Amino acid sequence: MPAPNALYAQSGGVTATINATACGVIETARQARRSGRLIGHIYAARNGILGALAEDLIDTGAESAAAIRTLMHTPGGAFGSCRFDLSPLPQGRAQYRRLAAVFRAHNIGYFFYNGGNGSAETAHQVATILPQFGCPVVSIAVPKTIDNDILHSDSSPGFGSAAKFAATSLREAMADLASMGHSSTRVFVMEVMGRHTGWVAAACGLALPAGRDGPLLLLTPEIHFERRRFLAAVRARIARHGWCAIAVAEGVKLRDGRRLTQAGGDGIPGHEQLGGVAPLIATMVRESLQVKVHWSVLDYVQRAARHLASKTDVGQAYAVGRAAVTYALQGKTDVMPVIQRTSNRPYRWQIVPAALAGLMNREKRLPRGFLTADGYRLTARARTYFTPLIRGEAWPPFADGLPVHAQLQLKPVARRLQSAFRVLP
Amino acid sequence: MPAPNALYAQSGGVTATINATACGVIETARQARRSGRLIGHIYAARNGILGALAEDLIDTGAESAAAIRTLMHTPGGAFGSCRFDLSPLPQGRAQYRRLAAVFRAHNIGYFFYNGGNGSAETAHQVATILPQFGCPVVSIAVPKTIDNDILHSDSSPGFGSAAKFAATSLREAMADLASMGHSSTRVFVMEVMGRHTGWVAAACGLALPAGRDGPLLLLTPEIHFERRRFLAAVRARIARHGWCAIAVAEGVKLRDGRRLTQAGGDGIPGHEQLGGVAPLIATMVRESLQVKVHWSVLDYVQRAARHLASKTDVGQAYAVGRAAVTYALQGKTDVMPVIQRTSNRPYRWQIVPAALAGLMNREKRLPRGFLTADGYRLTARARTYFTPLIRGEAWPPFADGLPVHAQLQLKPVARRLQSAFRVLP
Repeated sequence: MPAPNALYAQSGGVTATINATACGVIETARQARRSGRLIGHIYAARNGILGALAEDLIDTGAESAAAIRTLMHTPGGAFGSCRFDLSPLPQGRAQYRRLAAVFRAHNIGYFFYNGGNGSAETAHQVATILPQFGCPVVSIAVPKTIDNDILHSDSSPGFGSAAKFAATSLREAMADLASMGHSSTRVFVMEVMGRHTGWVAAACGLALPAGRDGPLLLLTPEIHFERRRFLAAVRARIARHGWCAIAVAEGVKLRDGRRLTQAGGDGIPGHEQLGGVAPLIATMVRESLQVKVHWSVLDYVQRAARHLASKTDVGQAYAVGRAAVTYALQGKTDVMPVIQRTSNRPYRWQIVPAALAGLMNREKRLPRGFLTADGYRLTARARTYFTPLIRGEAWPPFADGLPVHAQLQLKPVARRLQSAFRVLP
Repeated sequence: MPAPNALYAQSGGVTATINATACGVIETARQARRSGRLIGHIYAARNGILGALAEDLIDTGAESAAAIRTLMHTPGGAFGSCRFDLSPLPQGRAQYRRLAAVFRAHNIGYFFYNGGNGSAETAHQVATILPQFGCPVVSIAVPKTIDNDILHSDSSPGFGSAAKFAATSLREAMADLASMGHSSTRVFVMEVMGRHTGWVAAACGLALPAGRDGPLLLLTPEIHFERRRFLAAVRARIARHGWCAIAVAEGVKLRDGRRLTQAGGDGIPGHEQLGGVAPLIATMVRESLQVKVHWSVLDYVQRAARHLASKTDVGQAYAVGRAAVTYALQGKTDVMPVIQRTSNRPYRWQIVPAALAGLMNREKRLPRGFLTADGYRLTARARTYFTPLIRGEAWPPFADGLPVHAQLQLKPVARRLQSAFRVLP
């Protein structure tokens, strides 16, 4: 009986550092195998759990050590990601039967699922349901999300880099705005990701150096948006400083719980179809205060910005991948390696296992104490939390002016099952 | 009679490297003064020509050499910029009389105006009209614009850095999109600046490595937007690659000359008020092709992104500032130092003076030969042009995870005139 093989897969919205986790998983598994531990081939599923269901597997053994290393500086999901959840039982019976067949056919004994809260549930299902289908497997969720909302993890790999990029971009844009404010643009609105939580938007508060009073407003989903109060705050900042910058999370909400983008913001039907809360805020400010407004929506650019990754984040992303393999070889299953902060100054952290049942599909929200009473500014406590997460640079290599990314072979593993299995239409 | 003083000012939309030009002007003028050349104080006008009219001057002599050096890595306009043009004669008589009074009161003999095509006209007016008011002044326009549309300059300082950031961001977002395309987002639209010209949008074509076929479409104002042809091109790329990325210039136009944002794109009244052609394109693709679309609008973020400046651009921005002072001390006036490319491989360039009368308010457009016949892709000729402009990195210093910017004292020069002068409402 050959040693069990490992299957790694990526899930959900990707990040600038999810591939650093892939590197951590693959390098650690290779080292373990070389030192005689019970681990065979290291496969990756193409497009997350969908590739596992489709028996669309990649043999990472075809990649050189140098190629695997390039994952450290490559954004996106090198093996493809997916937005797909396994159905619960009993509806999902056919899916689990299929997964068990694929895992048995390829002797998969370890499963590493790299994602956020939703993906943790998939890993939990694999850990707890596949044995019922005659396929016991060690299943580990590996954390990743720029949303920073994984319950028992002090921070989430991917977040620090997105936060660093967003705060840097805002600081730079504020330097621009400050020079235009006298005779032209008075307000700049920058939209960042965060449908349910305001972690990235809050981190944008770092754009203003500590102790500096300045015209920057933060809008997060955790604080209800009140149009009149907001416009008064913008007006006051323009009066005092000449200009005002605003960082807004895409999911900012009204008191009634609707997202501003759903409500239309300015009441013009159709606007909500465009998505984008920044243009809504911009129109509101322009029409109410009669000032020139510029706006930006970062979208994928913020979560893919590997060129400005946080060194802390890259290190943690690698470390959770490494820990996942270590846990698996120790026989731990149905867990996620999470980051525990043990000291603020100096910043110290360790990785500990957290049971998946305790953190699945639950969101960690921004503590109220991270924002000032008016909800618009960052507190010292928040700065203490955020600063180490964005610290350090981890420049990728450049060629001809542009960052170089991994070029993997992605060698398919020969199929062993006769049947196909489609879950997408 | 003391040596004449110099006045430097910034105008128009600022860039990530306009302050490198300020550094070039100030350092070169200081060196000239130390070596006994005829140059006195080096002043800056706050907020461009508006500060000159308002007698709102800054004494850069109060800044240490180290502080002036930090301008090399500081985005925005450190002395403030403006959107304001002098009126032509005879309407502008009061403005010129005022300028002459301010220049005489502060013994300004050299004027350096750092801007784009519009600012070149201001510098020309100062050179040619102020003598009629008894105030001869050596006036030099110093080029800067991310639009890259200065007629006789091979490239414009500021452009290379904006292009590098936009192309890098698109390459990174494409890595993200490629991993999401299987089960989620199929199309990503990134909007860049360029109201009249597609230089930045075209440079985004570099996101795709040379010789690589890939699903990337470029939309520029130089090629009329045709909805049906565009949607067919997107559909074909999704069919072949699974996904498609689009870089679009804000000023993309219909055949009738209207901008897509003016026309509304989807015909829903009110949409055009939001600005932003990316959400229009995104809605069009989503509704026509029934696929999930993400979009981003870079706006100020792209032109302020000093953290990812092009080393070529930073060097050229400094060099035009240096040349401006050299020209002034040689008695050249009514000129702009422009960049002349003398070799592609290796890339070589020099700075030569161009008469302002020949380049004012004329735009250099993207050559048709830079785009393929269908208008959607970059040609090899375009790559040869663009690549050296984005080459090399010039990382700013970081502290606590964020870039450090200049903190100048901006010491005011004591006013000498009794009267005030207001041009803004």
